[in-house]
This record gives sequence, C-alpha cells and structure tokens, in this order.
Amino acid sequence: MAGEANPKVRVNREILQEFTKQMFHKAGLTEKNAALAAQALVNADARGHESHGVTRLEVYLDRIREGGSSATAEPIIVSDSGASAVVDGQNALGLVVGYFGMSHAIELSKKFGIGAVACRNSGHFGPAAEYALMGSANGNNCITFSISNATKAMAPWGSISPILGNNPIAIAAPTGNQPFVLDMALSTVARGKIRLAAARGEEIPLGWGLDATGAPTTDAKAAIAGLITPLGGPKGSGLAIAFDIIAALLSGAATTPDLVPQSELDKAQNVGHFFMSLHIPHFVNIDEYMSRVDLMLSNIRNSTPAAGVTQIYAPGDLELASELRANKEGIALQIPTWESLKKKAAELKVELPPTL
Amino acid sequence: MAGEANPKVRVNREILQEFTKQMFHKAGLTEKNAALAAQALVNADARGHESHGVTRLEVYLDRIREGGSSATAEPIIVSDSGASAVVDGQNALGLVVGYFGMSHAIELSKKFGIGAVACRNSGHFGPAAEYALMGSANGNNCITFSISNATKAMAPWGSISPILGNNPIAIAAPTGNQPFVLDMALSTVARGKIRLAAARGEEIPLGWGLDATGAPTTDAKAAIAGLITPLGGPKGSGLAIAFDIIAALLSGAATTPDLVPQSELDKAQNVGHFFMSLHIPHFVNIDEYMSRVDLMLSNIRNSTPAAGVTQIYAPGDLELASELRANKEGIALQIPTWESLKKKAAELKVELPPTL
Repeated sequence: MAGEANPKVRVNREILQEFTKQMFHKAGLTEKNAALAAQALVNADARGHESHGVTRLEVYLDRIREGGSSATAEPIIVSDSGASAVVDGQNALGLVVGYFGMSHAIELSKKFGIGAVACRNSGHFGPAAEYALMGSANGNNCITFSISNATKAMAPWGSISPILGNNPIAIAAPTGNQPFVLDMALSTVARGKIRLAAARGEEIPLGWGLDATGAPTTDAKAAIAGLITPLGGPKGSGLAIAFDIIAALLSGAATTPDLVPQSELDKAQNVGHFFMSLHIPHFVNIDEYMSRVDLMLSNIRNSTPAAGVTQIYAPGDLELASELRANKEGIALQIPTWESLKKKAAELKVELPPTL
Repeated sequence: MAGEANPKVRVNREILQEFTKQMFHKAGLTEKNAALAAQALVNADARGHESHGVTRLEVYLDRIREGGSSATAEPIIVSDSGASAVVDGQNALGLVVGYFGMSHAIELSKKFGIGAVACRNSGHFGPAAEYALMGSANGNNCITFSISNATKAMAPWGSISPILGNNPIAIAAPTGNQPFVLDMALSTVARGKIRLAAARGEEIPLGWGLDATGAPTTDAKAAIAGLITPLGGPKGSGLAIAFDIIAALLSGAATTPDLVPQSELDKAQNVGHFFMSLHIPHFVNIDEYMSRVDLMLSNIRNSTPAAGVTQIYAPGDLELASELRANKEGIALQIPTWESLKKKAAELKVELPPTL
C-alpha cells in the first residue's frame, strides 16, 4: 500500500461478512439477526457505499453496549389491517427492523398487490437500498420503496433552523438483468463532499450550502458552519417533510426534531421507517413487464453521452460494477475503518479477518 | 389595467368554472365529467398554478375536435385485485382519468389501509395536486401520491438524449388546518424560468441547464437550445426513470420515449399515471396523527427565517393564500389566455364570462 494516495486494506467479502456476523452475535444478537445485520453492512461496502458499511459497525455495537439499542429485541407487528401494518421495532437495530419491515410489506403485496409497513421504535437502518432490493430477489417480482426519517440536518426552505432530516429513499425494480435501484438522500450533495472541499481549501458550487445566516455561499467552510441545502430548494425540503410524515406519523415514531442521534449511545432513537411493495403480476403480465423495463434501461445506457462522458449508467449499474470488483478483489476498507474493526474485535474477543 | 407591467383580466372563480364546464360539455363530455375537468383547471388557476389552468383549455378542446382525445369515453377498471387495480382511461381526458384513478385508490385504501391504481390510455392530467388533494377532502383522512409520466424533456444523467419526462409528483396529507400538499416536477427549474432569463438577456445559475453538448452552462439561450437538468443530477434522473416504471410499466401505458405530445392533436397520447392512497386510521389514531402533523408544520412555519426572508411556508401554504385571494378578487388570467378562451368560446358558441 505504500505510496498510495488513499491507502486501504482489502478483505475477502465472505470472510468480512462472517466476521461481522460473529461480532453482532457476540454482542447478543441471535444468529439469524446477526447474519442479517452483517449482510446489510457488508453489502453496502460491496456496492461502494462505504459510508453505510462496516465503518458503522462500531457505533451499532457501542449503542448495544451502552443500552441505546437492544441486541435481543425482536420487532413485532402491532397492527395488521388488510394490506397495511404497523411494526414496533422494540428498539432492535434498524438493520434488523429494516429486513423485517420490508419482508412483511412484500408478503402483503403478494396477497393484495400492494403492501405498506410503517415501523416505529427503530434505529438508524443504514443502507436503504438493501431493503428495497429484497423486492427484486428470489423471484419476488416486486417494485419497492424504502424510506426512513433521520436526525436533524437541513432547514426547511427559507429557514435556518435545522429541523428536517436528510431522509433517505431507495426505490428498486426488478429487471431481466441486474435490478434498477436508486438510493438517495434529500440534500443537494452529502455534507462529506463539502467537508472535503473545505479541507482542500476549494470553493463549492453555488447551491450546495448556505452560510449561518441562510445566504447561499461558495465558501465551503462557511457552509460547514452553516447548512447543507435541500435538493432543488423547496422540492427537497417538501420531500423531507413528506417522508417524515409517512415514516414517523403513520408509525408513531419520533419526528426529526425529536429523533435521538445515533451518537447518543445510551438513548433509544425511535427512528421511523416506511416500506412499500408493489407486486408486479397483480398489475401486468410479468414477462411483458420484464421485456419493457429491459428495453427502457438499455435505451438509457445506449443514449448519446454528453461531452467528456464515456459511459451512461442506469441507477444500480455502478453499484453492480463495484460488487463484481469486490467479489474478485475483496472489499477495500479505509485505514480508520480497519482500525475501528480491530479495536472492536479485541473488545469482543473475535478474531480479526486476514487481509488480502 | 393600463400601466400594469403584466396586464391581466379578472374573472369570478365560480363563473369561470361554470363557463369552463359549459365548454367541456359543449365539446361532448357528460355534465359530470365536464364539471370535473373544469374543476381541475380552475382550481389550478385559483391555487396560482396558471400553467396548468384554463390556459390549457384550448389544447384539451382541440384534441377532442381533432380526435386525439375522446370526449365521451369513460375510464374503466380492467383489473381489480386486492388493494391494487389497473384502469384503462379509454383515451378520455387525463383530467377525467385523474379523478377516477385517485378516487378508486382512496376507496381501496379505506378497505385495505393502502390502495394503488395504475392507469393507461390517458392524456395529460394537468395539476397533479388536484388529485392528491382528494385524500384530504371530505374527511377521507388519506395521505396520497399522484404521479404521471410525461413527454420527453430531459436526458438521463450523463447523456444528451432527451428520453426522460419531467414527470410530476404530488404528495398530499391531511392536517387539522389546510392540507400539506407538495406538487413538483423533476427538473431543477421549469424551462419557463430559463426562457424568461433568455428573453431578458440574463445569465442563469450554473446547474439549471446544459448546452447542446451536455456541458453545464450559465447562458440561458444555450440552455434553451440544449437541455434542462434533472433535479440534483443523478437523483432527479433516477426518479424520472422510477416514475416512468410505475406509471407506464405497471399500467401498460407508453413509456416517455413513445408518449405522444399533447400538441399532436389527432393522436392518442397513452399517458400513464400512478395513484396511491394510505388511509391513516388503518395505521394510527387519527386524532393523534392530526395533532402531530399540525405541530410538525407549525414548527416549520415558526422556525428562524434566513436573512431577507419574511415568512416561512409549509408546502401548500402559498397555494392556499393564492386561493383565498382568487375567491375574493377573482382569478387573474393573462391576456393570451383570455384571448384563447374568447376564440374557443366563439367556436363552441358559449357565452364568455364577464370580467371583474
């Protein structure tokens, strides 16, 4: 690694997943839930979303140790009414509640064409796409929406009070090839990108951030001291409110202003999620759907590139490419992530996986 | 009106709606459908969305005259399976199919907690918010999503082929006061705003448009000759694809590349819509929901304004203010819109409403 600009450690994907599972199991999760939680994190790493990968293992484990999250809780269905249900996550990890909620939404949609599950008393659920992709797996033939509210990050349009979450949404749809999957939050760009520009002393484009008075700024440092902007101004701001309504108010979870940050390790977060599934064969012939969706996405991939662009990707294509690379070359972990795994492995007396 | 920068004609709201209804009825719509279509357009005007108001009456009527839309068709439910249904609009006006589809979605959600209706063989449905707001009316207590695909307007991220629609979404939620309603399309800004800047010889902010090679530009004229950008780049691009999948592929409608523009008056458009409704009392106690949503929105309205901002609006507040003004002062119509109403009124031999 010497000489690399951004040194990394590589670990075999299956081995990293087994290690992560052991860590969760040692922390008290059942073998089944430990396997699911490990899968969520390692899949995120494999798909190139390392901000939601094993770099978060430490905070999940620390929350269990400090009592903010429960290792042994199992989510329960508190009301099941037709095609809709409310789940109480019982303060289990959001990773566990995520699979539970979407799994039930898919089941409901297979009976009723559509299913919706609102979850309360959950925690940070990590990669929204992971749950959405369940609709495309195992011949489920479901189009899915996976939404969560999140802690305070943005201000409503026109305001400087950070009372909106950068609430994520993932939408996935099966295809004849790899699934279509869009996974996005509601800010113009991630705060991390603005931090990077600030660290490099670079300007940011107008529209990414606001200074502390709420005025648009190109000064990255002023934006870090101020606010990130919602996507498209009033549009992203309105979507953040809408997602808080369906994730928190339909489930009985906390709304963004009352959500406990993941970093307050000893306090329950009471995050809310909303999972929706549409079972395609209830609407149209599945073969016809498959050939039409494949044509749609191949038209997009084969459309004319803009100047300087070599390839056009459909949502999910880059993630698949990253996954294939991870399967071959192992998952690349940043040094601070590796150090955090080391520390936690020593704490829980689990053997650290070998690097490649 | 002399001396006004932007001269307008004012017409009493009820009288304009009755006139519009007569026009649709004379063109062949049943009295009931004529009343609905008139309501959709005049409500859009009242709420300040004049681009989707009676300024479009001419094109709807011309399409009927030229055979592109059917005046007498009634949408039918072609499959009804649990909480999901597919509607064939039978080439009726999108305004008629819109009410029909959302009305059925609301009905399904009252039985099953959630309901979804995908519609094919429809036309331009005008104001997405109009149908979404049905969930908040008449004590329906439903949170609703109203989505349509649309004709070619944007390129997928990285491409310069305009094969994506600027697909609208409206999300509405009931409250103890006026409903929350967000109505947005997926471009960064409307093309009309860029046209205005071009006409005034002004620059546009970086990010609004691309030139013909797909490079970001601040030159409004170059952007008009080029492309409008999707909201947040890959995010708006991905949402446009997702909405085309659910509106067209779940219903059997044309996808954006094959959608016939509204201006091709003699051809059926085959637009697709997707309506979803969540019946709140299936999830949580409605009184608890109402007090929580009111608190959420009042916290937003009362948050700290950015420099130069005098009032913070929740989605739907500005539309309500516009509506109250329209009820008192009449609906303000631009001169070209008024001239178009005059022309069509003469053609159909309907008496033009008096101006205020």
